[in-house]
Amino acid sequence: MHSIAYYQQIVAHYFTTTSLQKEPSNLYSPVTYILSLGGKRIRPVLTLMAAEIFNADAHEALPAAIAIEMFHNFSLVHDDIMDDAPLRRGNQTVHEKWNTNTAILSGDAMLILAYQYFEQYEPATFQALAKLFSKTALEVCEGQQWDVDFEERNDVTEAEYLKMIEYKTAVLLGAAMKMGGIVAKTSEENRNLIYDFGRNLGIAFQLQDDYLDAFGNPETFGKQVGGDIIENKKTFLYLKALEHGNAEDRQRLLQYFAEHPEDAAAKIAVVKEIFRSTGADTATTAAIEAYTLTAFATLDNMDIEPDKKEMLRAFGQNLMKRSV
Amino acid sequence: MHSIAYYQQIVAHYFTTTSLQKEPSNLYSPVTYILSLGGKRIRPVLTLMAAEIFNADAHEALPAAIAIEMFHNFSLVHDDIMDDAPLRRGNQTVHEKWNTNTAILSGDAMLILAYQYFEQYEPATFQALAKLFSKTALEVCEGQQWDVDFEERNDVTEAEYLKMIEYKTAVLLGAAMKMGGIVAKTSEENRNLIYDFGRNLGIAFQLQDDYLDAFGNPETFGKQVGGDIIENKKTFLYLKALEHGNAEDRQRLLQYFAEHPEDAAAKIAVVKEIFRSTGADTATTAAIEAYTLTAFATLDNMDIEPDKKEMLRAFGQNLMKRSV
Repeated sequence: MHSIAYYQQIVAHYFTTTSLQKEPSNLYSPVTYILSLGGKRIRPVLTLMAAEIFNADAHEALPAAIAIEMFHNFSLVHDDIMDDAPLRRGNQTVHEKWNTNTAILSGDAMLILAYQYFEQYEPATFQALAKLFSKTALEVCEGQQWDVDFEERNDVTEAEYLKMIEYKTAVLLGAAMKMGGIVAKTSEENRNLIYDFGRNLGIAFQLQDDYLDAFGNPETFGKQVGGDIIENKKTFLYLKALEHGNAEDRQRLLQYFAEHPEDAAAKIAVVKEIFRSTGADTATTAAIEAYTLTAFATLDNMDIEPDKKEMLRAFGQNLMKRSV
Repeated sequence: MHSIAYYQQIVAHYFTTTSLQKEPSNLYSPVTYILSLGGKRIRPVLTLMAAEIFNADAHEALPAAIAIEMFHNFSLVHDDIMDDAPLRRGNQTVHEKWNTNTAILSGDAMLILAYQYFEQYEPATFQALAKLFSKTALEVCEGQQWDVDFEERNDVTEAEYLKMIEYKTAVLLGAAMKMGGIVAKTSEENRNLIYDFGRNLGIAFQLQDDYLDAFGNPETFGKQVGGDIIENKKTFLYLKALEHGNAEDRQRLLQYFAEHPEDAAAKIAVVKEIFRSTGADTATTAAIEAYTLTAFATLDNMDIEPDKKEMLRAFGQNLMKRSV
């Protein structure tokens, strides 16, 4: 097995040595642009790592890994239009740098380009990859739609929220790893286990994102602490506080989350205090722990060498230890 | 061989008996809606017809035919956003009935749904279909981008214009027919010939659309005669008039196509007169004839029964005889 840095290097090398630019340039320049902004490349790294876990050369899984990264960037381009976001990775979003029409059409092209990477595999592998990809891509769209729908609703249940983050974020991590397993031609059982590993870790990761938004270390979190609270996002913390809080807590929360007060700092402080007093904070860390353990439990049945299980566990623990 | 009405009936039956509605309904309702608006279903009909031309049962090609129709409707939903179009097939466009974000996301889902229809075929056929589909879909995006780019340019050449309509419109007709050939497992040569038949007929069809917009019979054309002239669209007629006109013709055309005068009827009358006096009208009908003959020439080398060649020729002639 190699290090994460090694897999990142393979992905970085692909993007620095392969030009995606062609005519018409107004269609392909945004593709080149968004992919040049980098990011952690966590999804393609998962594909390459999973391929090695199941005894294939990481490079064999590169086309599948790039397909996943291409899809992820497609979804960012279209999501940024929908969210009217000005910045992505510290740079202008595609619809800001060009315009909405360009962002729609270039995004469409990226979704198609993602499928084309699978053509480098023989028919049976191609079909397995493309089928998993379509299922996952559709779930990501569904997750995005649930997220949009939830903004207008005040009766979102915990189960609905968990399904939303599973679809919007976690299934792509599961699929990224399963694709490594498909390329490596590991057993159907191993493929499903690594999918569940990635999916459960993905849910834990997203819940941790919710937690860190309120309780993360401002110096290391990377995003503005309290951003979700300012934007009245109904995160897991919020749902848990509504569930466990008394009538007064609920009323205060509902009111705070219907407003955009000028003094955001005061709002953040009060809401965090409600998250603490209702036990929403510990309920969230417990859920993160539970999903992480569910991910690790898939390793018990996975037919791979013990040191590889240890490697996956260490990877998961490392992911979950970021800047709490 | 069956009639066009028979193929249309198969397609109509699919859409009336198969519910595409699922949760989240805000994602899938626009899909159901746009597909319920009907249209001529010419693309899926081409797929079913081509399958029978190459001795398969039309029903075998139904999933591929539906994939093509799904893609076509995806492109309508996203194009209508870009064109800010209020109406489609006499009904509200998706972004008007819902909103732009919904139209983007539901469109994305339709593109993915299109790929999923190919999963009903075994791996080799699946790969052949999906590969052709991705190539074609990307070309349609490129054609759309050229079309957008051309709006800002005054130096579009005839060759560039022909490539634009080939990509934006014609390749999908070629691909629709080739998919029927792939499902029927006909020879590679037959597949390529039927692709060229559809592609060349598609170019002729689009050129005829340009011609009819100016010179069609208002009672049978279906669209507003002169619509392209009102919108200053640089059609084949326009490019030919610029090419063959004298300095005065060119100056008048350029001026007319930089304005949106209140008296559209006068503008239409003058522009049509320039189209006639410069011979742009006959140059366009000659090009339509030439592309139709190129399409028919593919039949000479196609390895199918003579009556099927006759049927394809009759279909093409019928398509080209609409309401001039």
